[in-house]
Formats: sequence, C-alpha cells, structure tokens
Amino acid sequence: MASNAPIGVFDSGVGGLTVVREIMRQIPNETIVYFGDTARVPYGSKSKETVTTYSRQIIKFLQTQEVKAIVIACNTASAFALETVKDEIDIPIIGVVKPGAKVAAETTQNGKIGIIATEGTISSGIYNELITKINPELKVYGKACPLFVPLVEEGLIDDPITLEMASRYIKELQEYDIDTLVLGCTHYPLLRHTIQKVVGDKVNLINPAFETAVRLRELLLQKNIESNTLETNHKFYVSDGAEKFKTFANTILPCDVATTKDVNIEQYK
Amino acid sequence: MASNAPIGVFDSGVGGLTVVREIMRQIPNETIVYFGDTARVPYGSKSKETVTTYSRQIIKFLQTQEVKAIVIACNTASAFALETVKDEIDIPIIGVVKPGAKVAAETTQNGKIGIIATEGTISSGIYNELITKINPELKVYGKACPLFVPLVEEGLIDDPITLEMASRYIKELQEYDIDTLVLGCTHYPLLRHTIQKVVGDKVNLINPAFETAVRLRELLLQKNIESNTLETNHKFYVSDGAEKFKTFANTILPCDVATTKDVNIEQYK
Repeated sequence: MASNAPIGVFDSGVGGLTVVREIMRQIPNETIVYFGDTARVPYGSKSKETVTTYSRQIIKFLQTQEVKAIVIACNTASAFALETVKDEIDIPIIGVVKPGAKVAAETTQNGKIGIIATEGTISSGIYNELITKINPELKVYGKACPLFVPLVEEGLIDDPITLEMASRYIKELQEYDIDTLVLGCTHYPLLRHTIQKVVGDKVNLINPAFETAVRLRELLLQKNIESNTLETNHKFYVSDGAEKFKTFANTILPCDVATTKDVNIEQYK
Repeated sequence: MASNAPIGVFDSGVGGLTVVREIMRQIPNETIVYFGDTARVPYGSKSKETVTTYSRQIIKFLQTQEVKAIVIACNTASAFALETVKDEIDIPIIGVVKPGAKVAAETTQNGKIGIIATEGTISSGIYNELITKINPELKVYGKACPLFVPLVEEGLIDDPITLEMASRYIKELQEYDIDTLVLGCTHYPLLRHTIQKVVGDKVNLINPAFETAVRLRELLLQKNIESNTLETNHKFYVSDGAEKFKTFANTILPCDVATTKDVNIEQYK
C-alpha cells in the first residue's frame, strides 16, 4: 500500500469529525477520506448485528477509495464491530474506545472513572472491560445519555436545556465520587463546556479523539506508511444530506470542506 | 385480493403505532401487519430520495405479506414518498397527511392553522399545499420540532424539559394567532398533554391518526374489501431491536403484542 494513500475515517454521522479534527492537527500530512452514515444515524440505539452490518458496508466502500488504514471514529461501532471486522480486512484498523480507555486509566487518581456514551456503548460494557484489563483495581461507572446526540444536532450546545439534561444524566456518576469522565461518544466533545460546568473543575474530562490520533500516528510509524506529501486532498462522503453535512463540517474542521458527496451505501456488501 | 387479507401499516419506528391504535379502535375486524424501520429511524431529517427508497423497500416487504391495502403511518414518508410509490403498486395506499389536512381545514374558525412536524415534512410544504387546495383563503404556518421524537423515545413525555422545548417551538406559531394545530408527526400525539398546556384550551389539536382510520374505513367499503372475520392475528415486524419495540408497543396498543420479528429490510428492492 502506498504511503501517500489516504486514511479512511467513518462515523454514524457528524460526530467523527471531532476525531478528524485531531488527526488533522497532529498529523497534517495525512489525507482523509471520511464517510458519515447520515442516512442511518444514530447508531447508539441500534443492535450489535445492525451496527456491524453497517460498519462492514462502510469498510467495503472505504476500500474502494484505496485507504491504507481505517479509523472507526464512532464509539458504538468501535464497541460493537471492531473485533469482528478487523479479522476480515488486511489493512490496519483502530477504534476510539481503546485509546480512550488507556488515557482514562492513566489519568484517574482515585481509581473511579465515569463513562458517558450511547446506550449501545454502555450496554456493551467495553470501557469497563478494557479499563479493568489495564488495571483490575479501577472502578468504572457507565451512564447512557441518549438525548446528547439530538441536542448537539439541534445546535443546543450551550443552552439551559442541555445543562439540565447533563445534570440529570451525570448526577448518578457524581454520587460515585468519580475524578475522571470519558466523553465516550464522538458528539460529546462538542458539549465539553456544558459537561465541565456540571462536573466542576476537579473532574478530568477525557476526549478519546486526541488519544486516537496519537495511536494512529504510532501505527503509521510502526508500519512505515506515514505520508510524506504536503498536498492533502481530503474527501468527504455521506449516505444522505451532503449539503447539510458540509455546513456542519465547516464549523468543526480547520480546513475548508469544499464538496461532500452522497454515496448509496447499501450497495456495498 | 381476499377481503380477509391484512392491512400493511408502516412507519420509521414506533410513532405509527398511534395510527394502528386508531385503526384497531375504529375497524377492529381488520388484521394489521406493521413494519417499523427501527434500524434507520428517524426519517424526519433525511432527504426525499432516501425516504422514498426506504418506503419502496418496506412496501415490497409488505407485499410479501399479501396485504390488501397499505397505510403510510409516517408524515415524512407520506409527504416525500406517497405520490411516487402509489403509481408503482396495484393495491390502495394512503398516507396520514391528506386526512390530517382535511380535518384541519374543517376545524379552523379563524382560518389560521399551525403545523408541527419533522424537518422533512415542514420543508416539503405538503400541509400548506393540501390545505390551501381545500380552501385557498386558509393560512398555514409550519414549524419543525426535531427534538420531539428523541424526547418521546427517551420517555420524557410529561417533563419540564419537554414543556420548555414545546414552548420554544410553538411560540412562533402562537404569534400568528392560530386556532388549530396539526400534530404532523405520528410521535406527537404522545405529547398531546404537554402541547395542549403550551397552546391553551382555545387551540384545537388535530391528530391525523383518527382521520386516517376514518379514511381507511371508507376506502375498504368503497373497494368492497372489508374484513368479515373476528379473528385478527396482527403481526409486528421491525428492522432492528424487536424486543425493545415490543415493550413500547405494549404500552401504546389495546391488544397484547406477543411477538415482534426482525426483518433484513435492505434485501427488498
């Protein structure tokens, strides 16, 4: 695989752009091919089987773009599909959960870690599994926050309603005296300010996106497939609503998203 | 087509059950085959092309169940897909928008009608089109309420957060002095109590589900295909999460939903 080939990144919708943003900051030489499954968003309330089927279709599409590596920039798909799909392809693939679990385990001082994520990610128990594999002494408490994604998509980023929902969701975790809170859905870093207000300054917020970009960089070095060009030509694909996606992407990314294309994702199987 | 054949009813998810409830009340002899597209819910933020493709797949599935008629129990799919798909099949098919528009036009006293619905239904302009076709003097004001569906699905039916969101969404319509408000999404009748609190007793709330069941009954009589059996064996299918759907269905329907089956809907084309 050519070193200057692009990196495929996918998510159920726009949330994965917070991961793309970190990759662009940390490894600006790399070209991104992004796919957002906006026709079938959200993934967080869907079953493992459905999310795995959808992830498999997207990987097939990304392979037509000749990507050299894939990042699953969605916690639910990382939780449900990564272990299955990684054995089906011959290029490196990473998710966002393992990097997030690692940095949470390294950050906590009192050994009590909270996870906020979608229903799917929480019910999978994957953060608990990976964190206690690093250190069995650590305690992990999860809470599903199904309204956070629609609140972000409605643009209620810094709003009393979002603050009230965040207080309700996080109250239970605060009773466990957590000192570290993982933003376990790629939409949630967009609510960082509101969430920090609820938990106070003493709780560390973990954004797996940062650590995922670190891990990706290590992987490219390891496999000796870092890009050596300065000309990046990022591409953005979605399964529905290309124009709407472009507008949102331009508010998140440091580069100009000039075009976004629609893909009929169901044809990839 | 046999008169005792079932009626196919579909929606993006659980909302269409409010229509099924009305059909069961008004024409209890009819057997229902319901399909909820829970893997790809919500439809309200998706494009016309995507919603039409999905509707076509579901109609193909319902036809394998040998239905004698189809009800599109989803405003977005009625708005986007009905006109296209009705020419592709040889059984009667109706949506929820036309019945809702008719009763709204008949109900208003001051000629000012508000519509609350998904982004898709509002942007289609279909309620405006159908209501002014009945009476060009009527004024129609639409407002998309994207958070209502997730709020219902989170169970925040009678909650201060839902009341606050309803106040914000409906405020604009109140400034137009509407006396009639159409609940233009099949989820919204579940928020009827909260919405009535916001608009006050002087505004009539229109639930298209009731009028849709009336229209269906007329249609069956007209075509002479009413069922004459008392044995109904309703069937419920979804594209994901059959167990979760069953629990929700049992809180809405007057009959016991004993089993719900998963269908791989993408294979119908």
